[in-house]
Amino acid sequence: MSDVKKVVLAYSGGLDTSVIVKWLQEEYQCEVVTFTADLGQGEEVEPARAKAQALGVNEIYIEDLREEFVRDFVFPMFRANTIYEGEYLLGTSIARPLIAKRLIEIANETGADAIAHGATGKGNDQVRFELGAYALKPGVKVVAPWREWDLTSRETLMQYCEDHDIPVDFSTKKKKSPYSMDANLLHISFEGDQLEDPWVESEEDMWRWSVSPEQAPDTPTYIEIDYDQGNPVAINGEQMSPATILETLNKIGGENGIGRIDIVENRFVGMKARGCYETPGGTIMLRAHRAMESITLDREAMHLKDELMPRYAKVIYNGFWWSEERRMLQALIDASQEFVSGTVRLKLYKGNIEVVGRKSPYSLFDSAVATFEDDAGAYDQKDAAGFIKLNALRMRIAAQKGRTFLDRDDK
Amino acid sequence: MSDVKKVVLAYSGGLDTSVIVKWLQEEYQCEVVTFTADLGQGEEVEPARAKAQALGVNEIYIEDLREEFVRDFVFPMFRANTIYEGEYLLGTSIARPLIAKRLIEIANETGADAIAHGATGKGNDQVRFELGAYALKPGVKVVAPWREWDLTSRETLMQYCEDHDIPVDFSTKKKKSPYSMDANLLHISFEGDQLEDPWVESEEDMWRWSVSPEQAPDTPTYIEIDYDQGNPVAINGEQMSPATILETLNKIGGENGIGRIDIVENRFVGMKARGCYETPGGTIMLRAHRAMESITLDREAMHLKDELMPRYAKVIYNGFWWSEERRMLQALIDASQEFVSGTVRLKLYKGNIEVVGRKSPYSLFDSAVATFEDDAGAYDQKDAAGFIKLNALRMRIAAQKGRTFLDRDDK
Amino acid sequence: MSDVKKVVLAYSGGLDTSVIVKWLQEEYQCEVVTFTADLGQGEEVEPARAKAQALGVNEIYIEDLREEFVRDFVFPMFRANTIYEGEYLLGTSIARPLIAKRLIEIANETGADAIAHGATGKGNDQVRFELGAYALKPGVKVVAPWREWDLTSRETLMQYCEDHDIPVDFSTKKKKSPYSMDANLLHISFEGDQLEDPWVESEEDMWRWSVSPEQAPDTPTYIEIDYDQGNPVAINGEQMSPATILETLNKIGGENGIGRIDIVENRFVGMKARGCYETPGGTIMLRAHRAMESITLDREAMHLKDELMPRYAKVIYNGFWWSEERRMLQALIDASQEFVSGTVRLKLYKGNIEVVGRKSPYSLFDSAVATFEDDAGAYDQKDAAGFIKLNALRMRIAAQKGRTFLDRDDK
Amino acid sequence: MSDVKKVVLAYSGGLDTSVIVKWLQEEYQCEVVTFTADLGQGEEVEPARAKAQALGVNEIYIEDLREEFVRDFVFPMFRANTIYEGEYLLGTSIARPLIAKRLIEIANETGADAIAHGATGKGNDQVRFELGAYALKPGVKVVAPWREWDLTSRETLMQYCEDHDIPVDFSTKKKKSPYSMDANLLHISFEGDQLEDPWVESEEDMWRWSVSPEQAPDTPTYIEIDYDQGNPVAINGEQMSPATILETLNKIGGENGIGRIDIVENRFVGMKARGCYETPGGTIMLRAHRAMESITLDREAMHLKDELMPRYAKVIYNGFWWSEERRMLQALIDASQEFVSGTVRLKLYKGNIEVVGRKSPYSLFDSAVATFEDDAGAYDQKDAAGFIKLNALRMRIAAQKGRTFLDRDDK
Repeated sequence: MSDVKKVVLAYSGGLDTSVIVKWLQEEYQCEVVTFTADLGQGEEVEPARAKAQALGVNEIYIEDLREEFVRDFVFPMFRANTIYEGEYLLGTSIARPLIAKRLIEIANETGADAIAHGATGKGNDQVRFELGAYALKPGVKVVAPWREWDLTSRETLMQYCEDHDIPVDFSTKKKKSPYSMDANLLHISFEGDQLEDPWVESEEDMWRWSVSPEQAPDTPTYIEIDYDQGNPVAINGEQMSPATILETLNKIGGENGIGRIDIVENRFVGMKARGCYETPGGTIMLRAHRAMESITLDREAMHLKDELMPRYAKVIYNGFWWSEERRMLQALIDASQEFVSGTVRLKLYKGNIEVVGRKSPYSLFDSAVATFEDDAGAYDQKDAAGFIKLNALRMRIAAQKGRTFLDRDDK
Repeated sequence: MSDVKKVVLAYSGGLDTSVIVKWLQEEYQCEVVTFTADLGQGEEVEPARAKAQALGVNEIYIEDLREEFVRDFVFPMFRANTIYEGEYLLGTSIARPLIAKRLIEIANETGADAIAHGATGKGNDQVRFELGAYALKPGVKVVAPWREWDLTSRETLMQYCEDHDIPVDFSTKKKKSPYSMDANLLHISFEGDQLEDPWVESEEDMWRWSVSPEQAPDTPTYIEIDYDQGNPVAINGEQMSPATILETLNKIGGENGIGRIDIVENRFVGMKARGCYETPGGTIMLRAHRAMESITLDREAMHLKDELMPRYAKVIYNGFWWSEERRMLQALIDASQEFVSGTVRLKLYKGNIEVVGRKSPYSLFDSAVATFEDDAGAYDQKDAAGFIKLNALRMRIAAQKGRTFLDRDDK
Repeated sequence: MSDVKKVVLAYSGGLDTSVIVKWLQEEYQCEVVTFTADLGQGEEVEPARAKAQALGVNEIYIEDLREEFVRDFVFPMFRANTIYEGEYLLGTSIARPLIAKRLIEIANETGADAIAHGATGKGNDQVRFELGAYALKPGVKVVAPWREWDLTSRETLMQYCEDHDIPVDFSTKKKKSPYSMDANLLHISFEGDQLEDPWVESEEDMWRWSVSPEQAPDTPTYIEIDYDQGNPVAINGEQMSPATILETLNKIGGENGIGRIDIVENRFVGMKARGCYETPGGTIMLRAHRAMESITLDREAMHLKDELMPRYAKVIYNGFWWSEERRMLQALIDASQEFVSGTVRLKLYKGNIEVVGRKSPYSLFDSAVATFEDDAGAYDQKDAAGFIKLNALRMRIAAQKGRTFLDRDDK
Repeated sequence: MSDVKKVVLAYSGGLDTSVIVKWLQEEYQCEVVTFTADLGQGEEVEPARAKAQALGVNEIYIEDLREEFVRDFVFPMFRANTIYEGEYLLGTSIARPLIAKRLIEIANETGADAIAHGATGKGNDQVRFELGAYALKPGVKVVAPWREWDLTSRETLMQYCEDHDIPVDFSTKKKKSPYSMDANLLHISFEGDQLEDPWVESEEDMWRWSVSPEQAPDTPTYIEIDYDQGNPVAINGEQMSPATILETLNKIGGENGIGRIDIVENRFVGMKARGCYETPGGTIMLRAHRAMESITLDREAMHLKDELMPRYAKVIYNGFWWSEERRMLQALIDASQEFVSGTVRLKLYKGNIEVVGRKSPYSLFDSAVATFEDDAGAYDQKDAAGFIKLNALRMRIAAQKGRTFLDRDDK
């Protein structure tokens, strides 16, 4: 156990992190600074102040980071159409680097030599917090109580509360859920309990942010989203801030049963885990952005982005946001977005998102070339013969030299 | 115009390819062999015989290739979770290499020195047919009438029919549609007409294989699909042949409003084009296969596949199925599928596919390790500290040397 | 043959392009503008003026582009450690986009509607010139005489000269060589003649810019190169302009027998071709830049660059410099070079380049961590155990579930 | 400290691992099995038997693994032209998985529950040994004394020897070198001592396997290497076993001053380290294999291999030989080698390897197509116009729509 003088804790105001405050004070005999952020998780953050004060905390940071979160983390990620393992929109992953950054900035401001968090030793979040912290302040000490203490069962934790006069009622509401949950403006996640059997279907009353497709309205909702250089800037013609865009899409998407997934994913620490996620607004943004790109992006630019996306997703999932490789990939991605501006029209209906229209002043869709009708010379079909002949040349030579696929056992 | 003695034509029995028969006979003064394949397009192929005979064709090939198509082309492609440009399941692309192969095999059997097809000079299909043909028979001559003739309008084509006694009524049914369509067991596609404006929503009565989500049943359908080494082999416990699997999933999917997309895609010849596709069974297979992999595939195996998939999709889309690079990628993909066996349970409802369960005798999901409960020592949380410390080492050193992200203008 | 009013020709002043001037004037009945650039090919460009005038050309452009060539084309490419097919330093490829750009700019200045070049229809250069031209001026017409005319043998060409009073003596010197050659500051290339048999060794007297290793001095030459943000800026402490850096390295390298290769490469048009190249300075720069990066670049930044390099090389080789994909890749590459500054020390000896020292104010080499001696706590070896355990976790779980490599037939 | 009953130790017979034998017996109170392999390191392995017996070891394994090493590890790696970070031929990395495999097989044979090795906690080798061990026997215990004990200085180690009657003289010869060295048939490596300053040139008397270029013969040596399906099988027409091939090339290469490198590399554990390597035979094989591929491999096959090579190298460097991703990549690589057969002719001279000839019954080099002379219609130059037009189409459309590179600030 290292020597810690002052530690900045990522403090939710909930039971677990309240216990951590006390435990840090006792075990490390150090001063604790709390940091509570509103990332759009849907719970008040201000009540964390009184709780922290009751625990003897003097330096209390409570901040609304929603706009920064969406503008500087969510939007850059969506410019890449990012999906992890074909399904997961990285709702939890993308919030961690911002929290890590603020923890370190507050440590620098308050002269703290350590940071602490309430993530367990089995998950990805410990990695994301700590990689960010180390990258931004290499000499920082990290305290991860869940990897150190012996309060590993609900009973021992409760006993600790009783022994240390920590009021347990203040988190009653949240603890009604048997699931381990995490939420921010981009998504809410569910893990644990009956989800630990991947053959068992999730229960309808687990979900929080969306109605089921069955319960969604019987008539579709049409929306238009305006993009500017790869980012959504207006809904149905109304300009909005980044956070408001996402809040609005969450509301519309949730009402239409959009954005639920139920997956088994591969954690960076080496195990598979089942997770359920609700990402209504993000799911809409993913489809809309791709549709916007479909008429404004050069083919090879799109393909290059598509080929690098899984790697970019992995970088973020594994917690390497604050890394050279993320910066480099972002530079490549952002270099493609200059003309990704225009409007996408979507039809939302009971869990479905249909792209029904896209237009742009920078559209590369050229109906004069593409038309089945007379193209007035915009495209000379005879060019295709030469194009094909030379694309085939290497294969023709190989076949002439006796390499034929017809005789080979070609799976 | 090259000297052709005998040409094998990909003959649908429709008006356009019937005109081509006559045109080839006239222009090239050559013998025409017709080849008509049942790939599950949903139309009788046998009537093509009489039509070809009426046009004076002596060598007529009519074949049911549905099982070969699904087993040797569709299934290998789905083992890679293949999607082009994030949306398109390659329904047309994947049928072309099989047709090219049979054209060449028939040319070899009949002593023909050329092949011909009815694809236009603007599309991808000409490329796919011809690259396949050249790769399999390097000296073959290719005749692509649409790139050569002047029958470029409906009027000139009709006049040609009248002048040459080609009965135009036999394709009346199909021509009711204003769209350019292509179908096989995997999908049906629509292009042209009002779709040429990407801002205009497609009309409901364009779609053929699926009801709209609105018109789908109000109660969900649950199905279970069994996989063996990456391929679906049974539905709801009933073993089926590859083609029957796909037919069955098309039916179930279509009834539940599944598998429609409306996209703007980038063609190999360099233009953007709007296409609408119905792929009910394929859309289900894509989700089901990924879910099967999610519990049976090693993490890095999955990520490697995911990173190479866009390239594999491009290889197929561009017509390079019969190439070294496709064979190599297939070898990599197939090397990962040995244990992708088990059962996936899906809930289908009004356009939605929800994965609600997955199980496998080869599952790598280890609840003993992943559990939030006591894991009885299956995983030592303290290992995570060292894991994170060394993953952070390069970044800590860089930060110690003065490279901090906090001071940088980092988008 | 399209209607051309005025054409800008890439004019070397040699026999072939002189014939092209006359041929364009005759066949297209158009005005010809000549453009001759000094890219460091080692021949005077000013004599081209009189020759063009003699051919009746009124608008004559003769320009020294050496600094722009090295600064804006060669250096960006070397920041990526670019090599095509493991061997070729792209000396010809990288000059073409600059020439294409100037051709188009001159066309815009002079009101020309076409450009022309002297590249053959079998090579890569036609592609590089024309892709650049089309990308920069989409409506431009391109005339490639070698693909059009019938002057395909030396005899017919000579006859044409005689018929049109074109003096053939002025290129006597160059024509002594039986090889097709191309040169600029980065390299000189040789193709054709006896090189067309890949089993035959090249002749010593073919080479122009370097002595053979056998003939190089018996004592080594040591040099130091300073880098600033990825670019060489000084040799042995002396600041130099980009072109002077490369000229100087060419001289030093050539004297020491450095930079010859003899390869069979794959052209974009589909064939294999034998080429010999002398790239003395470039070969030194490649090694030096990598050595500079070895102590200043983050590991994952380097690996990401290394994985994308072959694609970047292919983009340039195939002629897509003026493309979105090149811009995007360049953005990624350049984002990594901020700290690639310092000094590399090299030993040059009879064809060998040995890196014998590297230092940098931004070095990430941390001897305190890496040392075999006591590291005073800079690195905790016990962290490695956890690092390895979690990196192995996915494989341990797989093996526990019965997937063992020992029983598998694992090539 | 875990409970160990019997441990298999990778035993070199040197001082360090002899101390480990004793230390394991004392600290773990367990039985020690020694395993000593001849991988071509150039030292007798049989003497290890007496030393192990003297230390009270009952089960002693001494094996000649040279052929297996080259055939099943070195050759598969060279089929991919594998280089780590542009320079390193992975000589140490590729030996570790074989040792790990034998350690585990011996553990299974002898009923041991643990393995041990003498690698330090800072290097890559601990990772490679242990990842292999865990992958092949998931429940195995691993003992890495260097991470556990306090014998971290030469003095404490010597004191331990004295206290435990371990004869220190038997490794006198090796310890004359101040460097940390590792050797096998593929290479010998040097780390530590004065190499820890990357600005200091290595000393000539450090090198063991090669003369310097200066000291190499003044006349070149020509050799011919025959390949069969990607592997070298004969030198100068003489068929040889895999290990004999490599031994022979080491001798020839070493005599000609070939295969030294001096680099700073990035270790998997996160630090940069300086290493010097002699790889005479491997350096020759790398050039020869690529030359063989240059006339026998399809272009896209080669490019696909080239793009995946850095990742394959990283997999091996990081110790993941026994992984799904390595197997998958190997499947892709091997699928390309069927026709990589023929002969390469090389000129070796004072550190230089020049490829001077290559021939193959499967050559794809088609001089009839590539020739600058009359090709008798093998290639129609007019095809190139269409090829270029369609390759340019997407860029022409973009430029027509106003996206011009000329006005953009394009680095």
